[in-house]
Amino acid sequence: MIRVMSEIKTKARLFIEHDLTQGATVAPSPDQAHYLLKVMRAVNGDGVVVFNGRDGEWQCQIEEAARKKCTLRIKEQLRTQTSEPDLWLAFAPLKKSNTDFVIEKATELGVSRLIPVFTEHTNTTRVKLTRLSAIATEAAEQCDRLSVPEIGEAVEFNKLLEGWPNERTLLVPDETGAGKSLRGVLEETAQGEYIRPHGFLIGPEGGFAPSELDALGNLHFVTRVGLGPRILRAETAALAALSCFQAITGDWELKPRFNNGYFFNARR
Amino acid sequence: MIRVMSEIKTKARLFIEHDLTQGATVAPSPDQAHYLLKVMRAVNGDGVVVFNGRDGEWQCQIEEAARKKCTLRIKEQLRTQTSEPDLWLAFAPLKKSNTDFVIEKATELGVSRLIPVFTEHTNTTRVKLTRLSAIATEAAEQCDRLSVPEIGEAVEFNKLLEGWPNERTLLVPDETGAGKSLRGVLEETAQGEYIRPHGFLIGPEGGFAPSELDALGNLHFVTRVGLGPRILRAETAALAALSCFQAITGDWELKPRFNNGYFFNARR
Repeated sequence: MIRVMSEIKTKARLFIEHDLTQGATVAPSPDQAHYLLKVMRAVNGDGVVVFNGRDGEWQCQIEEAARKKCTLRIKEQLRTQTSEPDLWLAFAPLKKSNTDFVIEKATELGVSRLIPVFTEHTNTTRVKLTRLSAIATEAAEQCDRLSVPEIGEAVEFNKLLEGWPNERTLLVPDETGAGKSLRGVLEETAQGEYIRPHGFLIGPEGGFAPSELDALGNLHFVTRVGLGPRILRAETAALAALSCFQAITGDWELKPRFNNGYFFNARR
Repeated sequence: MIRVMSEIKTKARLFIEHDLTQGATVAPSPDQAHYLLKVMRAVNGDGVVVFNGRDGEWQCQIEEAARKKCTLRIKEQLRTQTSEPDLWLAFAPLKKSNTDFVIEKATELGVSRLIPVFTEHTNTTRVKLTRLSAIATEAAEQCDRLSVPEIGEAVEFNKLLEGWPNERTLLVPDETGAGKSLRGVLEETAQGEYIRPHGFLIGPEGGFAPSELDALGNLHFVTRVGLGPRILRAETAALAALSCFQAITGDWELKPRFNNGYFFNARR
């Protein structure tokens, strides 16, 4: 069911940790309250759409607006929670803005879990998980998702492979030309009755080290894939691979919900 | 034929306007000379790989290196010119860095022509074509392309449609849910014997105006396509659509040339 209470002026779409049930109230975080009250100048009675990744999406109404805080009264369910493609993205952290970019775009493209991976040629040694999580949350709010991708702890390349679930296909874009065409690999997957969970592993700007390529070659759950004749930057490869997955194997047969005519501004 | 003269230390890959013939010399632009001599500290005898979009790719060697200029002696052809997918991207200019991003990524993804388009909800009124051209050129140098996409003059939405070639399919990602699945549309195309030239039109952040959607709906060369249930930002939609095109209909069956072990640094 897709419907927005038309008499309410909806100011924002927010991810909330709390359980969501009709008639209850929830408190937005201090950041969210600041955004609602100061940036969006929301007042009592204004609408907020919320989701928590478990209970679907709800129309709320602002109550008890004060200088720095407010309460959200949960009025009506707009969408029930639905299952989404089970697709991981493991990626070598890039220069700061490019890592942010990968997180934002991967969220729009429906990734369920993001895992920073340190490879031999990765030239970043730290990632701030809270920052990545904030970017993923905002992207999920913006793109109308009902969930926020989980951000995994950063791991070393070897640990990633040791801990990789056996039943999850790991697709690795490979510039050496050793991979099969991504389209062919995905179409085989899509034709099977049971679609296994998938993940992509995207290397750093400098590519994988020879020992890393050897390690990948020895694992039964790894399939190397090609992304054409041009050498893509790491962030381009991530987006391109995820897009093709969703178009061929994932959920792009679905349509966006009815465009109800309101836009949500970026919080950052 | 893919071969690099192994005794030459290759410092850069550059797009050059001049004709390229064996034994001739060409002069790099002042910017290129600065990059070679100051940034890369190239000296006489160092190698440079060049292409011009017409004559394939050539190994050159630096001669007459002075403080601010040098000459490139054209030694040996590395690749002959090959045809590339005929794929246009018309896009509403975005905030500055996002426009740059679209240009860079579209070049990596093999677009042949880029056309800035002013729509009703476009909130940028100027684009600097020389800047866009410089970004496209550098991306082509980096991604190993043999051509640089042409940058068309910026046009109004109505003019774009009036001048659009009848035989070129215009695919328009559409958030209203009216489009067919991109995969389905592209697979029908790929199965035809004759692949028509294609283009994508990507609207601005605010989407197309209702009158614009009506205009698109009346044109026989337009096919509206869906990019799944999530609302993609404009730049994400551009990249996602181009990636799927190349994977399903374009040239992603081809592999990168033999990885000859040298990397080129970004010029910017």
